[in-house]
Amino acid sequence: MAAYKEISKEKVYMGSADYDSDLWLELSKVCEENNIACGEVTAIGALRSARFGYYGQDERKYSFIEKSGHFEIVSLNGNISLKDGKPFVHAHIIFSDENGNCLGGHLAEGCKVFACEFTIHAYDSKDFDRAYDEQTGLTLWKR
Amino acid sequence: MAAYKEISKEKVYMGSADYDSDLWLELSKVCEENNIACGEVTAIGALRSARFGYYGQDERKYSFIEKSGHFEIVSLNGNISLKDGKPFVHAHIIFSDENGNCLGGHLAEGCKVFACEFTIHAYDSKDFDRAYDEQTGLTLWKR
Amino acid sequence: MAAYKEISKEKVYMGSADYDSDLWLELSKVCEENNIACGEVTAIGALRSARFGYYGQDERKYSFIEKSGHFEIVSLNGNISLKDGKPFVHAHIIFSDENGNCLGGHLAEGCKVFACEFTIHAYDSKDFDRAYDEQTGLTLWKR
Repeated sequence: MAAYKEISKEKVYMGSADYDSDLWLELSKVCEENNIACGEVTAIGALRSARFGYYGQDERKYSFIEKSGHFEIVSLNGNISLKDGKPFVHAHIIFSDENGNCLGGHLAEGCKVFACEFTIHAYDSKDFDRAYDEQTGLTLWKR
Repeated sequence: MAAYKEISKEKVYMGSADYDSDLWLELSKVCEENNIACGEVTAIGALRSARFGYYGQDERKYSFIEKSGHFEIVSLNGNISLKDGKPFVHAHIIFSDENGNCLGGHLAEGCKVFACEFTIHAYDSKDFDRAYDEQTGLTLWKR
Repeated sequence: MAAYKEISKEKVYMGSADYDSDLWLELSKVCEENNIACGEVTAIGALRSARFGYYGQDERKYSFIEKSGHFEIVSLNGNISLKDGKPFVHAHIIFSDENGNCLGGHLAEGCKVFACEFTIHAYDSKDFDRAYDEQTGLTLWKR
C-alpha cells in the first residue's frame, strides 16, 4: 500500500524565471530562499534549449539528452522535498517543437529559459526526506 | 456555458506508491481509505510497463494499449469524484521512453510502478457524481 | 533571479466544459464570471479537433496548427492573470491520438470540446499583470 501523509498550511508562490536562466536552478533558488521543505511545482513557458534525463531501471543510472532548438514547455510537474537536509526540486518536463511533437523526461540542469511562468505550493512538513533506496537505486522518500 | 461549483476545505496528501503496485489501483486505495469524494491528483515517477486507454468518440468505447518497457511518468493529472457512490480516480498519463518520446492517454489498470510520487488534494464536496451521459457515451458529472 | 510573489486566499472551482464548446473560450468565461485576476488551471478530457500555437523565438510570433481528429486531452496546465485589466487564461495543452502519440503547444482558440473536466484555483492578487516584453516579444508579467 502507498505510503503517504496529510500535510497542511499551504503557501503559494507565483512568478517568472529570468530570461536565459537555468530552469532547474531557478526553481531550486526560489525553494531555498523560502526554505520550502515540502511542496509542489508546475510551470509553462518556452525554452531556448533543453536537457532532460531518463532513468535506466536495469542500469540503475540516469542518461541525459540535450536538444538544441526552441521549445514550448507544455508541462512541468514536480515536488519539493528534503535531500541532505536541503530543499530539493524533483520535476518532470515535457516540451514541444514547432510541429507540436513532444519530448519529455526528468528535468535536469541545462534547460535554458526563454520565458517561464511557475507556481509553487509550499506545505508545512519536514516528513519528506530523500534517502538511497536499495530496490530502485534512486533517492526516494523514506517510508 | 461550463457547469462548475466552488469547492472548499482542502486536505492534501503526499506520498509514494509501492514498487510493483498497479498505479491506478494504488491511487484509488488512497482515495478510498480517506473517503475522498472530490479532489485532484498529480504524480511523477517511473513505470516498469504501461497500459492506457483512448476513447473512440464514434465507436463510443475505450480501446486499450499495453507497452512493455521502462518509462518515465512525465505527467499525471486527474480528478477524484463519486461513481456509484464511491471514490473514483479519473486521470490521464503521459510517459516517455529512453529517447524522450512521449505516449499518453487515459490511465488504466495495468501500469506497473517502478517509483511514483503523488499528491492528492481532497475537497469537501459530494457534488461531483458520475452518471451515464447520452451524448458522449461516457460517465460524466451530472450537470 | 526569478521574480515571484506569495499569494493567498484560494478559491477552487471544479466543473466541466460544454460539449462542442471552444475550450479556451469556455475556461475564459469561467474566469470572467468569477473575476479571477490570479490563478491556476488544469484539465483532462477529450477533443473533437485541436488547434495550438508555437512561438517562434526568432520570428517573434506565434504560428498555429490545426489538427482534425479525435484526441484525449492528456495534460492542460496554465495560469490566470490580468491582461488589459481583464482575466486572461494562458495555458499549454498536450493531446494524444488513438496510438497514444502526443502533440502539444500553446492552447489557442479552436479546440472543440468532446468532454472536459477542469479545476481552477483562484488567488487574491492583482499583482500579475501582463505587458509587452521587449526581450521576448511576448506579453509577460511585469517584474
